[in-house]
Amino acid sequence: MAEVFQTTRRVEFRETDAAGIAHFSAFLCYMEQAEHDLLRTLDWSVMIPHGETGYLSWPRVHVECDFQGTVQFEDILDISVVISRLGGRSVTYSFQFTCRGRQIASGKTIAVCCHVRTDRSLESIDIPEPLRTRFERYVVSE
Amino acid sequence: MAEVFQTTRRVEFRETDAAGIAHFSAFLCYMEQAEHDLLRTLDWSVMIPHGETGYLSWPRVHVECDFQGTVQFEDILDISVVISRLGGRSVTYSFQFTCRGRQIASGKTIAVCCHVRTDRSLESIDIPEPLRTRFERYVVSE
Amino acid sequence: MAEVFQTTRRVEFRETDAAGIAHFSAFLCYMEQAEHDLLRTLDWSVMIPHGETGYLSWPRVHVECDFQGTVQFEDILDISVVISRLGGRSVTYSFQFTCRGRQIASGKTIAVCCHVRTDRSLESIDIPEPLRTRFERYVVSE
Amino acid sequence: MAEVFQTTRRVEFRETDAAGIAHFSAFLCYMEQAEHDLLRTLDWSVMIPHGETGYLSWPRVHVECDFQGTVQFEDILDISVVISRLGGRSVTYSFQFTCRGRQIASGKTIAVCCHVRTDRSLESIDIPEPLRTRFERYVVSE
Repeated sequence: MAEVFQTTRRVEFRETDAAGIAHFSAFLCYMEQAEHDLLRTLDWSVMIPHGETGYLSWPRVHVECDFQGTVQFEDILDISVVISRLGGRSVTYSFQFTCRGRQIASGKTIAVCCHVRTDRSLESIDIPEPLRTRFERYVVSE
Repeated sequence: MAEVFQTTRRVEFRETDAAGIAHFSAFLCYMEQAEHDLLRTLDWSVMIPHGETGYLSWPRVHVECDFQGTVQFEDILDISVVISRLGGRSVTYSFQFTCRGRQIASGKTIAVCCHVRTDRSLESIDIPEPLRTRFERYVVSE
Repeated sequence: MAEVFQTTRRVEFRETDAAGIAHFSAFLCYMEQAEHDLLRTLDWSVMIPHGETGYLSWPRVHVECDFQGTVQFEDILDISVVISRLGGRSVTYSFQFTCRGRQIASGKTIAVCCHVRTDRSLESIDIPEPLRTRFERYVVSE
Repeated sequence: MAEVFQTTRRVEFRETDAAGIAHFSAFLCYMEQAEHDLLRTLDWSVMIPHGETGYLSWPRVHVECDFQGTVQFEDILDISVVISRLGGRSVTYSFQFTCRGRQIASGKTIAVCCHVRTDRSLESIDIPEPLRTRFERYVVSE
């Protein structure tokens, strides 16, 4: 039985648009921030030194989001995160956004474990073992 | 034979992140900006007065993007847009991003024609006829 | 003796740039968010209905920020806010940013109490009395 | 007699807020983008390799902006830039924003020529000679 990672986010004024609602792109950033929150919970970070040069990081190869409702400035979003697929080198995160019980949005991102070299080139690598084990409690069985 | 709408976008420094590349969320904004460019070409705008109160606007119900490459500050993206589905009340846009011939990303958004009332509630409505006709030249046959 | 309003902010990945540090514009948004935090503490909000139509809101007429240090992704900023001048229709906020005791930035914004009409025109008005009284505890004597 | 660098910028939907106008922070980004436009005109870039490791870049030590008017989605801003002070290691840029002849905002930024090392530490250095000479045509006499 997978654990669900829970976090919240208040809609900032900067994230609203002239239609008076949170701009859709804010949700994509909320998803990334929730993913980073989850990594911190696992005592990890999205960008850590790797090898003699460069970083281990998690660029996205896919993002998607469906919108069922709208939120306004100062609304507080409840965000639930699970891992819907844990690959050898990638993680698929699934997100649900609600606001006071109303369904607002649902999304998915696929992040790939990469070695980012100092020339900014990327190479996918296996997810390091200690992190893989920590991810497992959030993996939903299909 | 559908026409392809073409536009370009230079990656701004603000849109890069600590990995040294354009942040994924920038592409979602580029897609929206390309959609607005296309609407301007059709002598329309994404938010126009509608009825006695409120606006006709195009909130997104779905966005997605796949990433195949990366770009850096000052790279110029070539963006191609077609309409992959023209519904009664919605438009599905498909986007291709390349940079000097390299494939960078491909995306899709579904925008719904809505009456935005002054209380910020949304109601979907039929796409107005003059705009529907103008959209048709960008619709790809499936 | 003025009270100092204290809040914190973690640097999000989206707010970093290709130089690997939080982009300067993020600090301008942090200042706005700290101002909104302070208003919430005073049981107020930056945009509330006013009159039969429109809003009472606080557009900025001046912003400035000086930078003495840099912060990176996941650094936590300690933000202090005082009111350095309380005018009839405007508030001057002063901000100090530190990170683990290091001085990072200091800033100032001047926000004007305005009636925002539905046509988006702005008219400055006197700060409503209940809010003025609540502001006073944060006013530093000069 | 100094030359004035001119550029334009259309307000994007993402840059508007719930008050229906371009958010103040957008102007800070427009200033940076205009500075980068000017550097490109001088055949330079804001972040170029320097020494064996690291970059020559231009972090800001000061930004400020005064707002006299508002703009909305799709308004086109005319932006004028001059150099109001050219120091040994810093440049002070002054910006004027107008829209169809209306005064909208004026701003100032001070950028310092820095060696950004791979550990992200910054050290100010003299402005390289070829660039200094190119800057001179934009320097206003006081």
